[in-house]
Amino acid sequence: MNITDYMQSLGREARKAGRVLSRTETGIKNAALLAIAEELENNREYLIQQNGKDVQSGIDNGLDAALLDRLELKDKGIAGMVEGLQQVAALPDPVGEINDMTYRPSGIQVGQMRVPLGVIGIIYESRPNVTVDAAALCLKSGNACILRGGSEAIHSNKAIAECIGKGLERAGLPATAVQVIETTDRAAVGELITMSDFVDVIVPRGGKGLIERISKEATIPVIKHLDGICHVYIDSEADLDKAVSIAVNAKTHRYGVCNAMETLLVHESLASQILPGLSAKYREKGVELRGCLKTCSLIPNCQRAVEEDWQTEYLAPILSIKVVAGFDEAVEHINRYGSAHTDAIVTENYTLARRFLREVDSSSVMVNASTRFADGFEYGLGAEIGISTDKLHARGPVGLSGLTSLKYIVLGDGHVRQ
Amino acid sequence: MNITDYMQSLGREARKAGRVLSRTETGIKNAALLAIAEELENNREYLIQQNGKDVQSGIDNGLDAALLDRLELKDKGIAGMVEGLQQVAALPDPVGEINDMTYRPSGIQVGQMRVPLGVIGIIYESRPNVTVDAAALCLKSGNACILRGGSEAIHSNKAIAECIGKGLERAGLPATAVQVIETTDRAAVGELITMSDFVDVIVPRGGKGLIERISKEATIPVIKHLDGICHVYIDSEADLDKAVSIAVNAKTHRYGVCNAMETLLVHESLASQILPGLSAKYREKGVELRGCLKTCSLIPNCQRAVEEDWQTEYLAPILSIKVVAGFDEAVEHINRYGSAHTDAIVTENYTLARRFLREVDSSSVMVNASTRFADGFEYGLGAEIGISTDKLHARGPVGLSGLTSLKYIVLGDGHVRQ
Repeated sequence: MNITDYMQSLGREARKAGRVLSRTETGIKNAALLAIAEELENNREYLIQQNGKDVQSGIDNGLDAALLDRLELKDKGIAGMVEGLQQVAALPDPVGEINDMTYRPSGIQVGQMRVPLGVIGIIYESRPNVTVDAAALCLKSGNACILRGGSEAIHSNKAIAECIGKGLERAGLPATAVQVIETTDRAAVGELITMSDFVDVIVPRGGKGLIERISKEATIPVIKHLDGICHVYIDSEADLDKAVSIAVNAKTHRYGVCNAMETLLVHESLASQILPGLSAKYREKGVELRGCLKTCSLIPNCQRAVEEDWQTEYLAPILSIKVVAGFDEAVEHINRYGSAHTDAIVTENYTLARRFLREVDSSSVMVNASTRFADGFEYGLGAEIGISTDKLHARGPVGLSGLTSLKYIVLGDGHVRQ
Repeated sequence: MNITDYMQSLGREARKAGRVLSRTETGIKNAALLAIAEELENNREYLIQQNGKDVQSGIDNGLDAALLDRLELKDKGIAGMVEGLQQVAALPDPVGEINDMTYRPSGIQVGQMRVPLGVIGIIYESRPNVTVDAAALCLKSGNACILRGGSEAIHSNKAIAECIGKGLERAGLPATAVQVIETTDRAAVGELITMSDFVDVIVPRGGKGLIERISKEATIPVIKHLDGICHVYIDSEADLDKAVSIAVNAKTHRYGVCNAMETLLVHESLASQILPGLSAKYREKGVELRGCLKTCSLIPNCQRAVEEDWQTEYLAPILSIKVVAGFDEAVEHINRYGSAHTDAIVTENYTLARRFLREVDSSSVMVNASTRFADGFEYGLGAEIGISTDKLHARGPVGLSGLTSLKYIVLGDGHVRQ
């Protein structure tokens, strides 16, 4: 079968399965999630054996250590997938939820009902656990999905897909509700992102290059997750203890994540008070500092930041620091250089806190909290399929409700329009 | 200036004005809406005179009578625009609204704040009143807009734009918050729908051809308003009086609108009881009927419907009728041939009403009400910029909140992630 025919057939099956899922009761969806968890547990050895093939090819192909680490499936990884499935099963079902039902002057009753999007195409890189996480979120939200994992994880993903299929069937659902693309041919991605008859939305998870390429070529709406150039602004009225602990946490809690701080902005009135001590803490943790002229005058051996630094998502133990004249300069810097992902102010000033919340145009805006909180689990969404940097549809962490849509429902008693 | 430079300069100005609007207080936005209304009233003669130029060119160019009628601006049309502005001023401001603020176990407080999208590009055909309606909705929702009306209404639109600009300035807002493209060159549309740095969303209003072309060529998200192939299904347990009045209203209240019924589905158990009388009512109103074999056997001189009829949005006094064996066949027909716009069931059966609401995948799904209610004003949105047939972002009538997005806000007290 050629790639086009193969993908079309996956699409057709997904559409059919999506229709079934959209009207499947919550209890059955939960039973399927738990059955999948059982299948993964019962097939632990098979999964590790299949994953071993991928790891071996990774070694043979000279995959770097970090990627190999993300690829390898250990007992702990399987336990994590099982726990993830159980958590999604425990979440409330968003489908069918009815909001804001009101009577209108005409006598009709109008509200909105949450419904699945239909079929979701997910494209991701090496980590095989994404296969389970993505399938679980799509299933619970009543969507069929077509999954395209990295070619380096193909054996692992096929093995996981077998477990998912068995779990679905045990709950009486079509195995085609979750389909893993079984070819590593790149043409399959090109088909997936243009089959608008069969796929309603594409979620790419991975590096910036992958996401930009897919957004450009897709003819189907894409929920994008682009860079996180996140800022913390320490205002003149900041509590210094809070400022230091937030600035340290936002940068050093984890480096390779999109909600880590990349630029610290400090009000000039307390720069000399806070920066020397703070920089010592960063250096203890091995963070390289790059600062504006003023910063460099306050911190010994600080490299001068260049224009490019303000625009860079380091994803590494590097931090750029700028001393600003006040609130307006801080907000201007954030709106200019930031990526509208997550930005925080540290202040005890009521008016500035309120203004920051309103004026900073980012998917998460925070007062006196670390940017590291920008996360579906921390926000109570239960799990996330990504963090959207788009403004339309879903913005910020995308959980179950981001995979649904609202339709209007109207109840009447023979009402006609006058 | 060439078209690219001209459009880029509109874009840059819109982006700047959008930043101002996004933090403008409700009172000032309302004052601007009312000042625009005053300017339109005070410049009534000028507007009619400029519109006269468009009408004359329309006549010279052989525009058909219906289009000329939509183009012509009379006192009543200006009064309608003024009233529209007053209504939008009276609506609650969606911007800044905070939802679902909750405390999380970590101690942070998380919620969502409604924010403007930024800059909205609107492309529409002949009716000049759209210029005012669109500007009003964008302004109230805190968005700047760039408007591209039909070339046949260019003088009218420029004159209206002057009034809008004066009204904005009187309220202390930048006149560039609403910009009308002052060239009729079609290349301007190509620029508008690809300036992703300056425009956040495109709303095309017009025929299917226009919308399909724009969706295909745009690199910016498009809120689409495609066909309305709307159905009414009269179930075996329908109240016959309600069924007749809904079926008559849904088809004959207005013909050229997207929420008019195009196909009537009737349960076979009451087809012979209801169709003869109903068809007489349709014929009284001059509606041409096209039916399935069964329908033709019950109605004298009924033309046989062909496959194409079930797929057609007539927008005219034509109705296709099909007798179905039951609920499942009706839903299958709707999901197969419908355009996911608006569909209704007439039934007194509780279980089927509930199933219809859940299983029909349309932007509006109704029980015992006419499809003609699918409208922003009837739903209490106050006004609408269109009816979205998309599933992502906004679905169904798009009012002020459809022109906004939700960002997460997080309030802490020095909280850091553990």
